[in-house]
Formats: sequence, structure tokens, C-alpha cells
Amino acid sequence: MTEGFDHGLLSPSSADRGIENAVRDRAVLQAMLDAEAALVRAQARLGVVPREHADTITAVADASRIDLDAVARRATETANPVVAVVAALTELVTALDPAAAEYVHRGSTSQDILDTALILVAERALRVIDADLAATADALATLADRHRGTPLAGRTLTQHAVPTTFGLKAATWLSGVLDARQAIHALLAEGLPVQLGGAAGTLGAYLEFARLAGDTDDGYAEKLIHAFAAELSLAEPHAPWHTVRTPLHAVAGVLGLTTGVLGAMAADVQVMARTEIGELAEPTGPGRGVSSAMPHKRNPVLATRIRAAATQLPLLAATVAHCLVAEDERPGGAWHAEWQPFREALRLAGGAADAAAELAAGLTVFPDRMRANLDLAGEFMASERLAVRLAPLLGKAVAKELLTTLTGRAVQTGQPLRDLVAADPRVTAVLDPAEVADLLDPAGYVGAADLLVDRVLHRHRTVGARSIPATEGRRP
Amino acid sequence: MTEGFDHGLLSPSSADRGIENAVRDRAVLQAMLDAEAALVRAQARLGVVPREHADTITAVADASRIDLDAVARRATETANPVVAVVAALTELVTALDPAAAEYVHRGSTSQDILDTALILVAERALRVIDADLAATADALATLADRHRGTPLAGRTLTQHAVPTTFGLKAATWLSGVLDARQAIHALLAEGLPVQLGGAAGTLGAYLEFARLAGDTDDGYAEKLIHAFAAELSLAEPHAPWHTVRTPLHAVAGVLGLTTGVLGAMAADVQVMARTEIGELAEPTGPGRGVSSAMPHKRNPVLATRIRAAATQLPLLAATVAHCLVAEDERPGGAWHAEWQPFREALRLAGGAADAAAELAAGLTVFPDRMRANLDLAGEFMASERLAVRLAPLLGKAVAKELLTTLTGRAVQTGQPLRDLVAADPRVTAVLDPAEVADLLDPAGYVGAADLLVDRVLHRHRTVGARSIPATEGRRP
Amino acid sequence: MTEGFDHGLLSPSSADRGIENAVRDRAVLQAMLDAEAALVRAQARLGVVPREHADTITAVADASRIDLDAVARRATETANPVVAVVAALTELVTALDPAAAEYVHRGSTSQDILDTALILVAERALRVIDADLAATADALATLADRHRGTPLAGRTLTQHAVPTTFGLKAATWLSGVLDARQAIHALLAEGLPVQLGGAAGTLGAYLEFARLAGDTDDGYAEKLIHAFAAELSLAEPHAPWHTVRTPLHAVAGVLGLTTGVLGAMAADVQVMARTEIGELAEPTGPGRGVSSAMPHKRNPVLATRIRAAATQLPLLAATVAHCLVAEDERPGGAWHAEWQPFREALRLAGGAADAAAELAAGLTVFPDRMRANLDLAGEFMASERLAVRLAPLLGKAVAKELLTTLTGRAVQTGQPLRDLVAADPRVTAVLDPAEVADLLDPAGYVGAADLLVDRVLHRHRTVGARSIPATEGRRP
Amino acid sequence: MTEGFDHGLLSPSSADRGIENAVRDRAVLQAMLDAEAALVRAQARLGVVPREHADTITAVADASRIDLDAVARRATETANPVVAVVAALTELVTALDPAAAEYVHRGSTSQDILDTALILVAERALRVIDADLAATADALATLADRHRGTPLAGRTLTQHAVPTTFGLKAATWLSGVLDARQAIHALLAEGLPVQLGGAAGTLGAYLEFARLAGDTDDGYAEKLIHAFAAELSLAEPHAPWHTVRTPLHAVAGVLGLTTGVLGAMAADVQVMARTEIGELAEPTGPGRGVSSAMPHKRNPVLATRIRAAATQLPLLAATVAHCLVAEDERPGGAWHAEWQPFREALRLAGGAADAAAELAAGLTVFPDRMRANLDLAGEFMASERLAVRLAPLLGKAVAKELLTTLTGRAVQTGQPLRDLVAADPRVTAVLDPAEVADLLDPAGYVGAADLLVDRVLHRHRTVGARSIPATEGRRP
Repeated sequence: MTEGFDHGLLSPSSADRGIENAVRDRAVLQAMLDAEAALVRAQARLGVVPREHADTITAVADASRIDLDAVARRATETANPVVAVVAALTELVTALDPAAAEYVHRGSTSQDILDTALILVAERALRVIDADLAATADALATLADRHRGTPLAGRTLTQHAVPTTFGLKAATWLSGVLDARQAIHALLAEGLPVQLGGAAGTLGAYLEFARLAGDTDDGYAEKLIHAFAAELSLAEPHAPWHTVRTPLHAVAGVLGLTTGVLGAMAADVQVMARTEIGELAEPTGPGRGVSSAMPHKRNPVLATRIRAAATQLPLLAATVAHCLVAEDERPGGAWHAEWQPFREALRLAGGAADAAAELAAGLTVFPDRMRANLDLAGEFMASERLAVRLAPLLGKAVAKELLTTLTGRAVQTGQPLRDLVAADPRVTAVLDPAEVADLLDPAGYVGAADLLVDRVLHRHRTVGARSIPATEGRRP
Repeated sequence: MTEGFDHGLLSPSSADRGIENAVRDRAVLQAMLDAEAALVRAQARLGVVPREHADTITAVADASRIDLDAVARRATETANPVVAVVAALTELVTALDPAAAEYVHRGSTSQDILDTALILVAERALRVIDADLAATADALATLADRHRGTPLAGRTLTQHAVPTTFGLKAATWLSGVLDARQAIHALLAEGLPVQLGGAAGTLGAYLEFARLAGDTDDGYAEKLIHAFAAELSLAEPHAPWHTVRTPLHAVAGVLGLTTGVLGAMAADVQVMARTEIGELAEPTGPGRGVSSAMPHKRNPVLATRIRAAATQLPLLAATVAHCLVAEDERPGGAWHAEWQPFREALRLAGGAADAAAELAAGLTVFPDRMRANLDLAGEFMASERLAVRLAPLLGKAVAKELLTTLTGRAVQTGQPLRDLVAADPRVTAVLDPAEVADLLDPAGYVGAADLLVDRVLHRHRTVGARSIPATEGRRP
Repeated sequence: MTEGFDHGLLSPSSADRGIENAVRDRAVLQAMLDAEAALVRAQARLGVVPREHADTITAVADASRIDLDAVARRATETANPVVAVVAALTELVTALDPAAAEYVHRGSTSQDILDTALILVAERALRVIDADLAATADALATLADRHRGTPLAGRTLTQHAVPTTFGLKAATWLSGVLDARQAIHALLAEGLPVQLGGAAGTLGAYLEFARLAGDTDDGYAEKLIHAFAAELSLAEPHAPWHTVRTPLHAVAGVLGLTTGVLGAMAADVQVMARTEIGELAEPTGPGRGVSSAMPHKRNPVLATRIRAAATQLPLLAATVAHCLVAEDERPGGAWHAEWQPFREALRLAGGAADAAAELAAGLTVFPDRMRANLDLAGEFMASERLAVRLAPLLGKAVAKELLTTLTGRAVQTGQPLRDLVAADPRVTAVLDPAEVADLLDPAGYVGAADLLVDRVLHRHRTVGARSIPATEGRRP
Repeated sequence: MTEGFDHGLLSPSSADRGIENAVRDRAVLQAMLDAEAALVRAQARLGVVPREHADTITAVADASRIDLDAVARRATETANPVVAVVAALTELVTALDPAAAEYVHRGSTSQDILDTALILVAERALRVIDADLAATADALATLADRHRGTPLAGRTLTQHAVPTTFGLKAATWLSGVLDARQAIHALLAEGLPVQLGGAAGTLGAYLEFARLAGDTDDGYAEKLIHAFAAELSLAEPHAPWHTVRTPLHAVAGVLGLTTGVLGAMAADVQVMARTEIGELAEPTGPGRGVSSAMPHKRNPVLATRIRAAATQLPLLAATVAHCLVAEDERPGGAWHAEWQPFREALRLAGGAADAAAELAAGLTVFPDRMRANLDLAGEFMASERLAVRLAPLLGKAVAKELLTTLTGRAVQTGQPLRDLVAADPRVTAVLDPAEVADLLDPAGYVGAADLLVDRVLHRHRTVGARSIPATEGRRP
């Protein structure tokens, strides 16, 4: 059994190679080794471990040298993989220098290593995701700007409502992407924290080892937390969070937001790419969207993959949320139930962001179809505008009743609404026919669409200009 | 990239080898190939494909001959793995006999193959799970029978309430396991259905191929469905269920029930194995429950793994439930979001059942600790019984008030309740001290515990005697 | 504070009056009183309570006589409402006959009453829901039969795929409704069980009271369970299920299935009612679907309400599933978290079923638009058929490649596919133009649609003919 | 039907009166009226509505004057309550001044009103919740400080692990509460945004009305958004968020965090209040925790209510997350599915925070029981410390093996570990018996517990000192 359980066969939404390299089992294993190596280097910084031993351990802390399957199998016996990883690492170190092996995992506990590893994986994955979101945002900004004058039927509850522009539609998608980016930036700016507490959150064994090495400073615990965070370029926690799972919950929430806003865009693309609507088409490519049976068909696979991810994320995040209820100094189950859903959420969000970047960059827009669709119910859509104009002239109730009646007649008879309106004596008493025709032109009734596009583009530039700082050992 | 994404590193709850072999990517790939081979054999049965070509296809439909990673990678392009599997299978067939390759996936569509494969995987996994549940049930039945006379503190809202027996506790766990078994048996007895409908559920292309081969019988569709189901020993559907996802929803529901009832048992084991309570201990074994830091500690890892699975299942099942809302003749996302959660649910339920079987068989029971704990609040627990006895003598309200007062005093002063009761003139007027002492003995107050154990054991024998029929081509 | 918290303002999906009367707080309160009255009548049946006292208690067990708000407020103090309900009932009984008051809630526990009440509410609600599903099914059967010859574009992943019929589409919706009905019937036929176990599931206090009345028969517990179930026309449980929550989980699963299959229908209606597609329209009525701003607009509110319910159900059911993990003889939280989600699930499923019945009965179908839409990509859709025909003549790979090429050219040039095909020498060598035209007519390519409609209609008649038995005191 | 559906009968977790007044249907109705009134005042500010009409509308916008049931019933017809609310408000205004009635809901759309109302309700509820969290935090800070010297068994996976202090346990709970408070403060500091976009997010009708009143300024849309936000002391959105549901998702996430961290505290209280453990007791009060059957029993109802809320929140939040996938300019279902779960999440979090404040303030601590429990496995718990001391003297592997062996022997024989250790020649060679005894005293092995308490208390003071600003019309 050397091939692993899952290869992405059933999760094409997540099978992007970029994110996959950040989150797969091999990457998690490496992150655990990174945590072990950083811990001993931090202890070396503080003088309680000989520097050369820390260097030795760091040198062999390489996931490619460890039998992943064997570690996974042993994890079943202890209900967590750290015991087996420590054993494997110790073996590697021993082979090089038995003296150094004494310093592996010194004073530590499974949760310090695994939680820190998950945070490392999350940190790396979030940066991959943000890069894809940035590309998505750039492409959407271009669309919003280019199509600010492209009229489009605004649709609510599936029905044409009032006109809008495709520029504003793209800007609205962009708004969502910017919300997700800001949330990611806020997380990374505040810094994702290392875990460090020892078996019951008191750092007891770390302190014992320090005392043994002659460090009896009361502040050793704080110094160790600081050094460990610095070694990994992560943030310091306020306190051990073995049972206060806020960091994972926060990441899961941001991932849910990410797939949610991308899912909204994908849902719109699916609607607008419907055969009858035909306003948008997905980018094509060799093999892309091929059907197993129908030669004429191109499936919108990018939107489909995004939707599939967006359907799964809320429940993965909810599992992480359930695990907030962690009893004792370490719970028997709530901790263990977090790992796989948390990693899967990173994976799916990464796959969705990758697909979104490709989708946004390659989207084909058909303004003619947008205009043709708009004209289907265009007069009706602009009738809100006429209602507004008539309200003060006839009274709001009368104006609404009159338009409801004439609209109904137009639908039934197929006559243009403008003719019926222009023939109504109540209207002709207050408006001339040209003004009626003008008011009923849907393309002229897009309100503040342009201004809103500007606002969103301005925000895009602001968000995009912000670089995400590294979080080296930042104090809380 | 030949090692797969996941090796079970983060899901020790599911890393049992039995279930894993039934659900891993390689098994799903084999099930897809099984579906392809069964389809062409069914067509051969009906005379529309030459039998030797069906045999050729069947002969090479072997997952070990296909590059799983390559297939998974290509799945990203089509948002489902079937196109790539068909290509790989066609290549294998062509190498053997190019003429036979014409008959691969003939008239078919991705969903017919993948849905049928998921059902095959589910069918196989459910039998693995049921076997583990059967073993669990046997072990619990033994415990229930052996400990029918072992008194135990009944606890509600974490507090000692009234006495019960450990036999009834084990019988109650067994009740849950029997519920899960019955639900699995009901599913398997009704039969999990193949999927067969072609590109839009009309079986159009299947019929075209049949007509081409000279079969113009109106009933061909029904015959094909029947033959396909028979080849796979699965049930016939009432109709194609491309957008009526009841079968997957039903399986997911049963898996949620399975981990739920096992989770309840595990939660009890965790409580009763607490250091202070000490009434139960998990089975030990080499490496089992070892802590990475604490030599004295043995973690209850089986219960922990079960709890972790039970925490995740409801959300995986909920994702499958969300996907019931499938629009069009095949939805763009709802279908794709099902696969991974569905398989993960099978995997986790399988891991939990495996752990449960081991836990139930190896549980160490400490009757002395049960009795000692019962005595902590024993008199108070039996005071319900005294209240019943006093109610008709003193009136319900007076009896309750009297006992509440005396109970409070006993707690505050530490005096035995029986002394306080026996000294109360209202009581001495109606009961003698020996009767009071007798009524306050908790071990005598276990109601119908024995009878209930018998009822559950009877049911266990009934459920256990039922064999699960194979479902070869059963008509709906 | 006499007006209640919620009036349905934020849940228009559930504000149907039929289901509401079955599930609202007043109905739950009545069900608790029904359970109390049935318990004492059962005890009277067995001779341990004077019959006249049971009659007195039954006579006043009327929810309209109890201050619901006061009970709800007191429930906060005990974390469950039963203590307050018992107090209120005792007060009513005392006013009539103080002697009878001694027999209220005798030997009982909160969970026996509340669980039984929830089951009663569920049983009543499921019958309301099934009646609406029956009406929905009848209307869909009529549509399926009437439109078996109405061609429709089959759509997969939002794109036209191959043709189908609207009759088969309606039959597919019907399949889902029949799945839900069968699941409900199976539940009701097996019988939803009363809860009866006393404080820790041993029936201890019930037996004490019986002994006091001279009944020392070992089988009293079984007789009491039987009599209690018979009084409520519910089923007997195998054993007390205080911590084996299978019955609630089963009901929640069926409710999720119900809203899921209705949600699939609603999603299709929403797609097909889109302004550009226009194949279906919701029934209209006074005030129905009115927009607060747009006079021309009619919102598909029935489908919207169903979708809203279907979005919520999986998570409500998942909450109930989480509560399967119930520790001790009664858990401190898992039990309490069930009630509201369980009731809300009944309410939302009821609202969805009511809306579905109205939607199915009043749906307007536009066959002309279906045909016009089909023709948009009709030739391409039927090209699968041509591919089948050409495969044995040219080889599958050649046929597929040829059609892919010609399809691409037809899309780019706007030329009819049949002309391009008929002009291709490879085709003309094997087929004549008339046959090509015939093969490319989408309306002729609907496969076994008719036969499948028949199968589903047959099943509809079978399911509809089945009456749901009452479950009076059925033995498990 | 004038009494409302729900009175809190089934949700004692949420039946606190403080939060209930902020979230109940009457409060939501008032918030809708507040939004309508603020909108017309904003228009009056900008000169497009006569000020006196805005005043008239504001004067009658009083929920107590509207028939809540009638509005809720009508909401079923339109799938949202706003149409009926506007009609009811218009009627009230007309009665006072028909001219003013023309200005009700002018240019507006249902979603502007309902979304803004939900935000208002959320804003008010979050302040109620934060006040209860502040009280909880103060009480926990007191406990942490007072019990910094109270040794406690640290427990992991239900087993005693290494010692800690109750002060650090309380500080850890406090950490979670501070995380929740900081998240609430961050939300409120950034400001929850009004919704304003009109029928399709272009503000089209608002601009028409403004033009009609002579305001043709391009910036009118921005001025209106600003004025509307200012009138309600809410924040301005970047753009209309009709389909970008980040604000509701963010609030739901914070509520999930809130009940999660409180749930962790409640879970610990439940464990520590177990009859056998007895380290903590809930505050008592009249009627509090009474059992319907057992006079001696006091149920930990506050922790139970918190757990029940924490079990429900993740799924309510997940429903809100699902609704992020909102298609078109307003979705037909995703919007409608949000309202009830969102409000229920506010209600449950409010109930949990209220219970937590009472629980934290009234918790009884039993240091003697903590010490007695610690001594049960005390020597074993401190053996980690001895292992540390021995590691450099004997080598890590030898030290671990030696202690594992002796620990096993101590468990089997019941001999004190210190005696076995002190008798082992490998140990006596390097340590004297007094040092062994000292190292094995659990109370001396609490690591940095004290320092960590200080860190958390410092953070508590910082968070507590921060006042939450009002967000009057803050620019994004």
C-alpha cells in the first residue's frame, strides 16, 4: 500500500496542482517536521540546546525521507500522527548523530506540533489562494471597466427586473472577491499563531528542560513562544489555544467566504451561459469541458468546479466550528475531527480560486445577446422609471395601478407598452409621447451603475496595493 | 506526482485497512471499470454487442492497469473522471482487439458510470461496515448479559440520577447498533440501484445502438436496465435518478445513524473511563494509546477515533442532502459536490465501525468502581423510590417537600439520608426503619432493567439471524 | 409579553396554516398534555390508578387553558418545559379534584413526556405533509401523462444536451415525490414509538407505583409500554430510547428528502420560468408574487419558498444527527439542542409541501416555447443519434471526430448542421440526405421517454393506493 | 391566530428576555419601519422629499401599531414581508396625512429594507451579547486571579495528564471569551453596513425621484447612501451587497465563535461538576435546575443551555454561508433562506451569553476536591517532570522506558511510584530520594501557569477598556 488513498479522482474541484502541493499529506508532514525543527532551534537560541544538535535535526527534517504510509498507519494506534513522526525523525537524527536525537520533541506534546503544522499549511495555502484571488480581481476589474456601458437585464427571482450593466455585474463579483481578499489580508496581517503549551498548556516540560540547562528565568516561557514563532515567521498566541480553537475557526470562515463569493460569480456565469441566454461563455482549451457522449457540447467546467467547492465548504467550516467545543486540556474527538475538514477546506478553496482566476481571465462576453435579452422585457423593465415620473403627476397609487393594468394588457396583446401608455388619456394629459418613449428605453435606465463601478475599482486598487506582511514572531 | 494526495495522515479515524480497500480511489476506479464492463456484457446479453467483445472489455477492465494519477489529472479538465477513464479503458481494449474498442461506453454517459460506481462502492462498503457492526453487537450482547446484575449509577445531565445496571447500559448501546444494522439491512434488502439513462435520462443512444443491431423492441430499455443491474448484482431503479438523488441520500443517512449510535457509545466510554470514574478501560495493545510526552498515560484512542468520525458525519451527510436540489437533466455542481463527501462518509463510518468492534470486544469493566461510584449518591438516587412509597401515605406534595428538605440537610451535614428520614416523625408514623433502609438501597432499585436487557437481546438474535440477500437484478 | 416571539415574519416558507397548526408551540404543549393524559389512562388500564382520576386529568389536559408564555419562561430555569407543564396541569387538576392531582406525571420523567410529544407532533405533521405530497403527485402525474409527447431540450450542466420530453421531466419530479412518500409511509407503517423509561430508562418509579397498587407482575413494564402506546396510537419502542435517538433522526432524514426532491422541482421551475426561457409559469393569484417596486413583475414565489426551505433542511437535519451522540442516561445539551431544529424541520417541510401542491396543480406549460428552445440547438442535440448511426459505419473514433469538426463549423458559420453533414463525402458514402435529416430531428430522438413515464405513473398508482395505517400500540 | 407561533417553549437556551426583545418578530418589524423612516429622512436631508412628510412617516413608523400576524400572513404571498409592511405603513401614514403617503418606500425595493433591518437587529443584538460577554469576562478574570494557586489535574483525552491550575483553566476560558469580544468589536468598529441599491442594485428609481425633484447631481447616489447610513448610525457599504452577503456571513461567523467558546467553558463545567469529580457547581436559585422527578437532583442547567446553543450555531451559520451563492441581481431562495437562521443565531448566541454571565459569576469552586482528584494520579502526572530530569542523566530513551516500566508496576501493585523510583538503582545512582519526591509532587509542576494567567488578565484589561464606537454613517 504505497500509493495513498486519494489522488483527486473524486474531487476535480481541488485537483489544482498549486494548492495541492501546499496541502497534501506530504506537505502536512513537512510542516510537522518544520515545527519540530523550529522548536529545537528556538530552544537553541535560548541556550538550552546545543546549536549543532538543532542544526542536525533541521538538516534531516525532510518529508521526502520519511515513509508517509508507515506514519499514517501508525497514527491509527495513537489517534494522531505525531508520535509516529517523532519516531521517524528521531531515527533519522540518530543515524546522523545519536547525541542530537536526545533533543527531538524535547518538552513537547503532539498538539503543539500538529496545530502549528496546520497553521503553517494554512498560511502557505492562504497565500496561494490570495494570489489566485488577486488575478481574479484584476480580470474582473478589467471586465467592469470595459463593460461599464454594456446594458444588461437585471434579474431578480429569475425574472427580468430593471436594467443594469454588465460592468456593474462584474464589479459586484469583484466586490465579493475583494471582501475575501480583505478577510485573508486581515488574518495574515494579524498573524496566524503557533501553538506552544506542552501536555496541558502550562509549558511545564519546556521549563523543566530549561531549568536543567540552567535557565531559571521566570520569563523563559514567553521567550520560548517568541523564538518559536520567529523561527516559523508566524505570530505569537496570547496563550496556548489547545482548547480555544479561534485560529482554525477564523481560517475556515475566510475559506467559506472565499468559495461563497466565487460561487456567486460561478452561479451567474452558469445562468448567463445557458443555451437560451448566451450572454457569456467559459474559456475553452484542449480537452476542456468535453462530454463523454455529446460531440457538440462544451460544459462550463470551471463554474461547475467552483460551485461544487462552494457547496461543500460551509459544512466543512461548520465541522471546524463544532470543534470549538473542546473540553478538558485536550478533547478526545473534537480536536481529531478538525484536521481533515480543515485541510479539505483549504484544498477546495484553493481549487476554486484557481478555477476562478482562469474563468475571469478567459470569459467571453456577448454584448449583443445581452442587449437582445434586455429588449425581451425592456419596456416593462423601464416601467419602474415611468412609474416614478408619473407618481407625482397622478399620485403614487394611481400611477402604479395604471401601469399594472397597461403592463398586463401589453403582455396579453403583444402590443408595445409605449403605444398603450401613449394612448392612455391620463398619461397624455401630463406627458408627451417622445418623453414616454425615452423613459421606456431600458438602456437609459441604469441609475448609478457607472459611479458604483468606479467605487469598486477604486477599492480594488486600494486592496491590491496592500502587500501582505510576513508575520515573523509578531507579539500579540 | 505518483503518490496520491492523502494517505490517511490526518484521518486516523478512517485508516482501517478493511474499509479503506473498499473506498479508496483505486477501488472507485475499479468500480467504474466494473460498471463499464457490466454495461457491455448487458448489451451482449441482449444481442446488440458481440459476446467476445464484451469478454475482451471485461478482461482488461482492471484498475491496476490504469494510471490513476493521470486519470485524476484529466478529470480536472472535464469536471468528472469518466471521460479519462473511458479513454484509458479504450486504449487497453484497443491494444488487445481494436474491434472491441468500438463497444466501450456505447450509448452511455458519465453519470451512468460514476453513479453506478458509487453505488457499487457503497454496497461493498456497507457490507464491510455491517460485519463490524455485527461483531460489535455480539460483544455488546455478551456484556449486557454478563452485567445484568452489575449496578451502576444512572446519570442525567452529568449528575447521578437513579440507579441502573451496566447490563442495561450495554443493551442500550446495542439498541443503537441494532437500529443501524436494521437500517443497513433494509437498504440492502430493497437494493441499491444502478444508474442508467444516457445523456438526458431517456436512454436515447442506448436505443439507437440497439436499433442499429436490429432490436426494435419497445421494451429494450427495460431489458437493458434489468440486464445491467443483474450483471452487477444491484437493483433496478424505478427510473433514471440523475436528478433524484434518493439512493445516495439514503446511504448517507444510514452512515450518519451508524456513526451517531457508535458515537453515543464512545461518549459513554470516555465518561466512564475518566480517571476519577474508572468504571471502564479501553483494550490495550502494542503502541495503542501511547502519548508523545507522558509515559504513564494511555489514551482511549478507539473512542476518540469514533467520536471524531461521529463529529464529521452529519455535515458530510448534509452536503449530500444539499445536492438533492439538482436542476436540469444533470446539474452543474450539485452532482459534482456529492462524490467526495459521500465517499468520505463511507470511509469514516467504516473506520468507526472497525474501532467499535475492537472497543466492544476488548472493553474492561470494573464492577467495584461502579458500585463505589453508585454509593457516592446512592441514597439520594434511591430517594425517588422512597418518594413513591411516601406519596400515597403523605400526599405527593408533602412527600416531595419532605424529601427535598431532608436531602438538602443530608448534603449539608453529611449525615446519612436514611438516618434523617428514619428520625422524621412524619415518616416514622407510616414506615419502620428497616423498610426505609431497604427502600434507600440503590442496588435494589433498578426497575425493569433485567427485562429490558432480555428484550434487546431477543432483538439482537433476530437481527443477527437475518442474512442480507444479494440484490441481483431485483425489480423495483 | 403575551404575543410570542415568532409569527412567521421571517419564514414565509413555513407560514402555511395547515402545518403551522400541527407544529406551533401551542400544538407542542397540547401534545405534552396528551402524553400526560395517555400515561395516566394507561396506568388506569392496568389498575394502578383509579379510572375516574385518569378521566379527570384527561378532561383538563387542554392547552388552551394554560398560559403558554408563563410555561416557556419557567422552562428557562429547568432547561426544559416539562416541569412547568406538569405544574400547570397539576394546578388545573387540583382545582377540579385534589385527589386526582396525586396521579399527574406519576413515576414519570421529563424526557418521557417531551419525547413522546415530539413524536406525536411529528406523526401529525407527517400526515399533513403526505397529504400535500399526494396532491403534488397527482398533479405531476397529470402533467407527465399530458405532456408525454411534448419535446423539450434536455439540459446538462446548463447546456442543451439531447432531447427529452416535458412528460418525462414531470415524471422525474414525480419520482422524487414518490420516494419521499414511500419514505414517509415506511416510517408511519413501522410506527413512531412512544418514549417510556423513567428517570434513567429502567422504568423504576413506574414499577414502584405499580407495586404500591399491588401489581407485582414482572411483566408490568411491558404492559405499561404497550398501554401507553395504544392510548396514543403510536408504536412501542424496543426499549427506552433516551439516548438512542434513531426515531428523530429517521424523521429528520425523511424531511430532508422531502424538501430536497421538492427543491429539485422548484429549481427546474425557476430555470424554465426565466424570462429568456419561458417554458413554464407559476400559478397566479391575488397578491401573489407582487414586487414592492416593479409593477410588471411576477415573482415565482412558490418555487422561491420551496428553495428557501430546501436550503435550510439539511442543516436542521444535521443538527438532529449531531445529537445522536448522547452520553449518560440523558445528555446535558444534546437532547436540548434537538427540539427546535426538529420542529423547524417539520414546519419548513410542511410549508414546502403545501407550496409544491399549489405549484404543481397550477403550473402553466408553454409547449411552443419548449419547441422553440429545443430548435436553438436541436440539430446538435440530435447529433448524438447520428454519431451512433455513423459509429459502426465509420468507426466510433472517426464518427466522433467528424461530428465534432462539423459541429464546430456549423456553430462558427451558422450553416445548418444537416447541410454540412449531407455534404460530407464520408457521410454521403453511407447515408442518404433524407436519413440524415431524419436522424437530426430532435423531436424524434427522445428514446424511452414514453416507457419511463409509464413506469413512473404505474408506481404513482401503487404508492397512492397504499393507505397509511394507524399504528395503535403496535408491537415492535 | 393572534398568539404567534413560537414562545420559546422548545428553546429555553434562547428565552432570555434581553436578547429576545432585540430579535423577536416585533423587533424585526420595528427595524423595518426604522429603515423606511430613515430612508425618507435621508431623502428629505437631500431635499428630494419635504421634511414634514418625512417627519410624519417617522412619527407613525411604530411596530406596536401594526398587526404583526396579518403582515406575516401576507408575506407568504410575496415570499417576503416587506410588501405587506409597506402597505401597513402607508395606511398609517394616509390616515394622518395622505400627501405624506406618496413618499413611503419611494424608489426602494424589499431587499433594501429587509437587509437593513436585519443589520439593525444584528447591531442591537451584538451589543446586548457583548455586554453579557463583558460580564462573563470580568467574572472569569476574578476566578483566574483568585485561583492562580489552586492546583488542578490537567486532563487530555479524558485522562489525567500533567498538573495545571484552576486559575489557568479560568484564564483559558477567558481567552475564548476575549476572542469573541474582539471579533465583535472588530465588526462593530468597521461598522455593519446599510443596504441601498434599489431593484437591481443601480439605485435607478432613487435617482429618478431625485431628478424629478430637481437634483441631477451625479453624486446623488453616494450622498443618499451616506445620509441613509447616518440616519441609522450604521456604516456605508462599498456598494450594494444584494448578492454579496459578506456582512451577514461575518456576523454569523462571530456568533458561531461566541457560542463555541462559551460551549467549551460549559463542557468543562459539566465535566467538573460530575458527581464523581465535584470540582465545580453551578449557581443555584429558586426553581433552578429542578428535576421533574428526582428531589435530590440539581441539574447544571446553565451549562446545558449553553451546550444546546453551541450545538445548533454551526449549522445556522452554515446555512447563512450557503446563501453566499446568490445568483442574478437577487436570488430566488438563497436570500429567503437566510433570515430565520440568521435571527435564530442571534437569539441563541444571546441566550448563551446571558447564561454564561450568570454561570461565570455564580460558579462555586471546590479547591479541596481539585486537590483530591489531582492526587489520584498525581505522581504519574508529575512523572513527565521526572522524565525530563532523568533524560540527560540516563538518555531520553532509557529514561522513558524506565518510567514506563515503573509506572506500569505502580499501577499494577498499587505501590507509590516514588518508592519504586527511589528503589531503582539506575535512579539512585543519579538522584537522591528527596529530589525524587520533590519532582513527583504534582502541585509543584504547573510550569508557566502563573505567567499565562497574567498575560490573559492583561489582555482582558485591554479589551475591556475599549469602547465600541457608534458607526454613524462611517465611510467604508
